[in-house]
Amino acid sequence: MNDNLDSLFRPKAVALIGASAKELSIGNVIIKNLLHYQFRGPVYPVNPKVDEIRGLKAYPSILDVPGHVDLAHIVIPPPFVPEEVENCGKKGVRAIIINTAGFKEMGAEGEALENDFLARARKYGIRIVGPNCQGIINSDPGINAYCNFTFTYPEPGHISVVAQSGGVGAVIMQAFYDMGIGQRMYASNGNGSDVSITEILSYFGKDEETRAIVLYAESLDNPHEFISVAKQVTARKPVLAITAGRTEKGAEASRSHIGGLAGNISLDLIYKKAGILTFNSQEDLCHAAVALSSQPVPTGNKVGIITNTGGPSVIAIDELVSCGLEIPPLSEEAAQILKGTMLESASIRNPLDVVATAGPAHFKSALEVMVNEPQFDSIYLNFVTPPFVDCENVAREIAAASKNTKKPIVCNYMTDKQKWGGTTKILKDGEIPCFDFAETAARALHSLVRYNNIRSAKQGSVKKFTDVNPDAVRSILDNARSQEREILTAKEVYNILEAYRVPVAPWRVANDVNGVVTSAGELGYPVVIKADSETIIHKSDAGGVVMNIRDAKEASAVAEAMIRNLGSGINFLVQKFLPKGMELIIGAKAVEGVGHIIMFGLGGIFVEVLKDIAFTISPVSDEEAIEMIGAIKAAPLIHGYRGEKGINKEKTVEIIRRISMLCNDFPRIKETDLNPLFATGDEICVVDARIIL
Amino acid sequence: MNDNLDSLFRPKAVALIGASAKELSIGNVIIKNLLHYQFRGPVYPVNPKVDEIRGLKAYPSILDVPGHVDLAHIVIPPPFVPEEVENCGKKGVRAIIINTAGFKEMGAEGEALENDFLARARKYGIRIVGPNCQGIINSDPGINAYCNFTFTYPEPGHISVVAQSGGVGAVIMQAFYDMGIGQRMYASNGNGSDVSITEILSYFGKDEETRAIVLYAESLDNPHEFISVAKQVTARKPVLAITAGRTEKGAEASRSHIGGLAGNISLDLIYKKAGILTFNSQEDLCHAAVALSSQPVPTGNKVGIITNTGGPSVIAIDELVSCGLEIPPLSEEAAQILKGTMLESASIRNPLDVVATAGPAHFKSALEVMVNEPQFDSIYLNFVTPPFVDCENVAREIAAASKNTKKPIVCNYMTDKQKWGGTTKILKDGEIPCFDFAETAARALHSLVRYNNIRSAKQGSVKKFTDVNPDAVRSILDNARSQEREILTAKEVYNILEAYRVPVAPWRVANDVNGVVTSAGELGYPVVIKADSETIIHKSDAGGVVMNIRDAKEASAVAEAMIRNLGSGINFLVQKFLPKGMELIIGAKAVEGVGHIIMFGLGGIFVEVLKDIAFTISPVSDEEAIEMIGAIKAAPLIHGYRGEKGINKEKTVEIIRRISMLCNDFPRIKETDLNPLFATGDEICVVDARIIL
Repeated sequence: MNDNLDSLFRPKAVALIGASAKELSIGNVIIKNLLHYQFRGPVYPVNPKVDEIRGLKAYPSILDVPGHVDLAHIVIPPPFVPEEVENCGKKGVRAIIINTAGFKEMGAEGEALENDFLARARKYGIRIVGPNCQGIINSDPGINAYCNFTFTYPEPGHISVVAQSGGVGAVIMQAFYDMGIGQRMYASNGNGSDVSITEILSYFGKDEETRAIVLYAESLDNPHEFISVAKQVTARKPVLAITAGRTEKGAEASRSHIGGLAGNISLDLIYKKAGILTFNSQEDLCHAAVALSSQPVPTGNKVGIITNTGGPSVIAIDELVSCGLEIPPLSEEAAQILKGTMLESASIRNPLDVVATAGPAHFKSALEVMVNEPQFDSIYLNFVTPPFVDCENVAREIAAASKNTKKPIVCNYMTDKQKWGGTTKILKDGEIPCFDFAETAARALHSLVRYNNIRSAKQGSVKKFTDVNPDAVRSILDNARSQEREILTAKEVYNILEAYRVPVAPWRVANDVNGVVTSAGELGYPVVIKADSETIIHKSDAGGVVMNIRDAKEASAVAEAMIRNLGSGINFLVQKFLPKGMELIIGAKAVEGVGHIIMFGLGGIFVEVLKDIAFTISPVSDEEAIEMIGAIKAAPLIHGYRGEKGINKEKTVEIIRRISMLCNDFPRIKETDLNPLFATGDEICVVDARIIL
Repeated sequence: MNDNLDSLFRPKAVALIGASAKELSIGNVIIKNLLHYQFRGPVYPVNPKVDEIRGLKAYPSILDVPGHVDLAHIVIPPPFVPEEVENCGKKGVRAIIINTAGFKEMGAEGEALENDFLARARKYGIRIVGPNCQGIINSDPGINAYCNFTFTYPEPGHISVVAQSGGVGAVIMQAFYDMGIGQRMYASNGNGSDVSITEILSYFGKDEETRAIVLYAESLDNPHEFISVAKQVTARKPVLAITAGRTEKGAEASRSHIGGLAGNISLDLIYKKAGILTFNSQEDLCHAAVALSSQPVPTGNKVGIITNTGGPSVIAIDELVSCGLEIPPLSEEAAQILKGTMLESASIRNPLDVVATAGPAHFKSALEVMVNEPQFDSIYLNFVTPPFVDCENVAREIAAASKNTKKPIVCNYMTDKQKWGGTTKILKDGEIPCFDFAETAARALHSLVRYNNIRSAKQGSVKKFTDVNPDAVRSILDNARSQEREILTAKEVYNILEAYRVPVAPWRVANDVNGVVTSAGELGYPVVIKADSETIIHKSDAGGVVMNIRDAKEASAVAEAMIRNLGSGINFLVQKFLPKGMELIIGAKAVEGVGHIIMFGLGGIFVEVLKDIAFTISPVSDEEAIEMIGAIKAAPLIHGYRGEKGINKEKTVEIIRRISMLCNDFPRIKETDLNPLFATGDEICVVDARIIL
């Protein structure tokens, strides 16, 4: 990874290879955008067939361009691209945006062309954005680079956007523009053949003027690198992302506990692990970015509300409370002050209803008092502009209050922004984040609290257990591989779990009836007998599992019946029959490029009917394991409910971390399921498990 | 209820009592609004101190106004209002909007004034809107009535709004205005001393030009009347409402500012019973209203998707699927046609990606083919405006396709609406509902499907069971009342349940040890013994319940112990001990003004930890009972899960309906809880129950 992308985002001269005089063409629109946005350096159209485009002299080849060029667009058809990359190399171009589509995404021929131009670019040390992409924008007034064919001309601001999908990028840019919110940098890198989302994210992370970063990705090439880079960025500034493809999640989870987890769930988990704020809605994301780029982060979740209209405060409270924010009461002292400063019809409480006739002085006092209440971490404001109130001076009070406090203020600003243009401008200049609806303002405030939670969350530690025996595991896995087996036998599975000190129900293996009876005697009745054969996957369905066997007579009868039904080649697993405790499931599944996803839930209906499962990406820290256990809806059962004791959380956390370590030590474990574990009293014990390579 | 509100909404002449020359005053703003909105009749300012306001001659009194006046505003201080109402009566005014605040909401003095003016209004047959309200708007070009001090001047349209909170009303009006969407009528009736939300709803329901109605209420004076009126309206046109006060905190805030009983849960249930579409977000509601007032209602939930950009279609699908909509595949025939008409890089499937370079001809074919696919009930469209495409003609194709089909089309229109003004206007004139984001368009489409579900839902019937014995119940309840008891004894509870043929576990009462043993013998062991005393509410905690008693010896020992611990005055309930089946809970609770709310859930952790409960308002029809049973998250357990049989749904439905009938027959039952019922095999049986009066 190389995040020095200055020649891309801060070009001094731009050439456009494939510039066109035809108005409805990409090769013309990019020239138009560069000129309209007043790019600070020279723009060189390259086209051998015309002399001039939009008043600029055109050159037959990039090699004919007189001055130095750091950034070139290429918009010509795919077959001609590699040669032009070569020419750019000769010319000393540092970065190229290939807008043209029709490469890897169209099959083998396109892929060959892509590999061709990439090889040439590498030869010259050129960085490539695209192909099949929009390009970049930098609104820095010293640069004004609009190297892009989209249509939104952002004002300078503090939000930067990186979007794999140009469509989503365009929507988000336009949304900020429509809200009157400036933007800093933009990039859409399409196929991402060279410059990656991760590099761009890192670059934005280091840009001083960027206060919040918006991210849209549908896949990530190197999730591990992404997580490690994004973690550094999110520690400094908020990164906001849409969880694209989130609906596979439910379907996949229900298919088999975690069998068949697709990339979708991973994206959500990757973002979570990286400390990224995720959203299901682009609009919520945009609103959050506005708040996060203009207001300080609150240190807690307690909100003071000021309103000059009743209904919207009901809606705001509904939304704030639904988001988990708290609305503590006003202090007695504050109430006393406000009784003296508010109108008679005002409602002195939290929410503080100053009523519609309140003027600047009432707002000034309301803001002063509420901001100074130590029990409020942030201020939520409903401000409707009554035609009989001096709204501009109310806005001045709001802006002044915001300037003088480290607590964030968000505002549901209800008005006709054209008619109340003066008021609107005062709020904008005061960097008060304004939203049209109570709910949207409330959710924007919630995002500030979410970012505070992320920033202040304990990181936890990943434990390297030293009492484990990796060599034993390695030899079992090597043996299975040498036999080309994917499903491990019960004996292998239990040996592996024991090698990593995961508690399992006492067990023996046997290969005949006598062995079963002897084993059962050693374990002590009652026992469970399971047929242990690689060829029988659904053991229960095949009559290969019999529970609660009470004596030797029953044991030998069961073993004989299994041999009769399943063949004399089978082996037996004899297990201590444990009293049924609370059922748990802990699982892991390898996901391409991500590593293992670790899963936790209560067994039976909780997983199967209620889909009440928590996931995280391995390696799992103690804090992450604790969070997983608390994240399921049935968590009160785990913590102990109605006087019942609950389960041993420390042991559960330890088992999760040991399974996580096992998977990290042995990436070739494709899937493992401890299903169920029984939690009884203080003990937790695996009673059935499988491992697939 | 009288829903002839023509003199209010279609006034021919308007007077303003309390008109003012002061610009920042309500008495001036209303005159300004009437003039600015070009009211079609005369406007008469009434103010004894000035001659002229905004160029209009002012009159000293309403009685001095030369012409007929149907509608008057009163904006003078409360003490003077009753007399002016009297004067209006003398003048022959038909309706009055009292904008002034400071009546019932401010205490006893204000209430007296309110009663005073109401009595005078009744005398003259005058209808009153308010006090403490904004008033009304009618955008009908033949009327242009802006009898209101707000600031949004809606264009004519097909959405009417009634809002108890003027603040919320203003936000919603402004939102439609900002979207470029016209509106029909508006009313905010504040205290609602006379003209009610229900009457206004009914009036809008009968207005031909109103295609969708938006409702915001925080409380309803007469929920039963409201439900019956709203049901008639929702059968003809959609009614959309915000569920205000859906959180406890929100409800509390609403109580304080409207000074009435707010029912958080009841409001939601009232709306549901009335067939009203509910929303948690004003923005979602506005979007839905736009779709519902411009597009036909689909007959199913299957969506065909056309897109000219990739990412937004991923987001759209996530949202559509999350809403429960389906995205069936394209037919083979359709794919064949599209292969001939689309660009080479197009993706021929559902979603159909015509790609960004697609022009009018591609859209035309895409729309034709998709609309004609019988498996699609509606069309979802992502349309970004690429600068290199003839977007105006694309828009013409979209508008033409919409005109020629009965299937709804909604559009995520991604553009700069100023720069693409021509395209925007073509879509607007074609009544294509356009939304800025994929998610918002998807949710708007979902609201069309929701309304179809409401309109086509089976109404079900409320059964009057004839095998019940109300006389027996009445005499038990009368007896308890005569003894001033609120909690019924177990004997009374079981007798009532049996009188309404609700199956209960076989039981006897006894008042001494011998009686207990005899009863147990008659029932057959095992039995449960419960101390039955009005004074012991938490029987289990007091040692007053012992389960699974196996013989006479145990029975007499238990009964003796209870006498020892709880006193010799206790009675006993002896019950057959049933094998523990699936636990159910059925309950009912009387809510002021609403009647009984009936509740259903699975027992134990499902209710207590997972809060997995369904509610509806009594009387409960068969369809409503079936819906309740299916509405809980654990419904798969009820239907039968993993080969298990599930419970007898018919019997469950019958018990719910019998409890509903019991509560309707005896409104003085304040609360009843059947907790639990055991469902075993085909049987369902109450094993514990209580009734509170």
